[in-house]
Amino acid sequence: VVSARVFEDAGFPAVVTSSAALSVSLGYPDGETIQKEELFAAVRRIAGRLNVPLSADIESGFGATIPELVDTVRRVIEAGAVGVNIEDIANYEKNTLYSLEAQVERLHAVRKASDSLGIQLVINARSDAYRYSAGDEEARFQEVIQRERAYEDAGADCLYPMGLTDKKRIASFVKSVTKPVNVMARKGIPTIAELESIGVRRLSLGPGPIYATTALLRKIAQELREKGSYETMLTGAITFDELNALARPITQ
Amino acid sequence: VVSARVFEDAGFPAVVTSSAALSVSLGYPDGETIQKEELFAAVRRIAGRLNVPLSADIESGFGATIPELVDTVRRVIEAGAVGVNIEDIANYEKNTLYSLEAQVERLHAVRKASDSLGIQLVINARSDAYRYSAGDEEARFQEVIQRERAYEDAGADCLYPMGLTDKKRIASFVKSVTKPVNVMARKGIPTIAELESIGVRRLSLGPGPIYATTALLRKIAQELREKGSYETMLTGAITFDELNALARPITQ
Repeated sequence: VVSARVFEDAGFPAVVTSSAALSVSLGYPDGETIQKEELFAAVRRIAGRLNVPLSADIESGFGATIPELVDTVRRVIEAGAVGVNIEDIANYEKNTLYSLEAQVERLHAVRKASDSLGIQLVINARSDAYRYSAGDEEARFQEVIQRERAYEDAGADCLYPMGLTDKKRIASFVKSVTKPVNVMARKGIPTIAELESIGVRRLSLGPGPIYATTALLRKIAQELREKGSYETMLTGAITFDELNALARPITQ
Repeated sequence: VVSARVFEDAGFPAVVTSSAALSVSLGYPDGETIQKEELFAAVRRIAGRLNVPLSADIESGFGATIPELVDTVRRVIEAGAVGVNIEDIANYEKNTLYSLEAQVERLHAVRKASDSLGIQLVINARSDAYRYSAGDEEARFQEVIQRERAYEDAGADCLYPMGLTDKKRIASFVKSVTKPVNVMARKGIPTIAELESIGVRRLSLGPGPIYATTALLRKIAQELREKGSYETMLTGAITFDELNALARPITQ
């Protein structure tokens, strides 16, 4: 809730959960190990405290079958999400992908399920083909283009080719598809201005914020252990009233 | 879970929840507004992932009656806590205190309840008398001494006079009681070495870590909005594998 509210207060028009940040903060490793009920409860907590729309990262949908996937989508919508990030990883231990055909069928099912609930769900179709498909870098780049083209035909609203950081590659990808493109802010990624200039429409921070705050917690702990002082913790910190103001009664 | 595991990994021998940090991160303002079930679930999540002992901040016990207080204590013990922070605030909107006699009765009840469960519960008896009782600074200092003396007689294992920051005041307080004394790290507090030299045995960070990490989140958001860059987020950040390693299957 705190991080979502901070980004809302900073003027961002929407918030998306990070699966890694949400899962690990609740004690589960990333990769669909979180109990589904805990995921839905967390989405409900966050959605209920935001004024801006919330999208939920549902990894690959928590279930290999279409009914399981549809149940996950229905439950996050009921919890207050109006969008999902959904990826094409079939097995998080082996980093294998659903076939293009299987993922197209899954995206069709998500679109159909949300339509039947009367929700214009924003489907952000992530593909990990650039990271995990077979072949050299060029082959994997072609694979992610082929997949994301199929995903937009299947009803995705936004395309999220995970792992692209090179400006030319990103620009080439944007030109190869028609729907808005999402990239993740990570080391080596162009600035927002550069991304805008090549047509990128959406930027994800992913677990970037929790990587940074956890590093800060480590520094705080280290200073306490080594120096017995609190400078890292106290310098620039917000106040009790500022923290409390980030909590808000559930609005739904 | 993440912050608890970071402090465990840094070598601290025990972890305590902060009511403000835990509540606000779940969307509730501090001051017993969190749903009790959500508090117990959070304690269970954290206790289940730690190897070191966990103590739970239960504010004033979530209930003006002894049975309500005892239920809270029983439930946090069942959730895996082996200690509690319990304070003497009767009303969080008005910042009024339980009478000394009432709080003594409440501490007796906590000790009796934990004994009947076969747990050597570490009762950290916080008093807010230095902040919220009547009179001038000297009168409030005498009041917190009087109260904490009564609380140690009532079975408290540790005494936590909230609001003391001055080294002489803290030293004087330590000499006025027999049980170990806990103070909170905040602006103006002596270093750990100085606190040790005057006999302080336990240091709480309170919501200090979340004040710091929330400030960092704000800086990350601000840089994104103003500069369109990610330096604050990426500099010194931990990795995906390091984050994931902080999650752990429930051990209980």
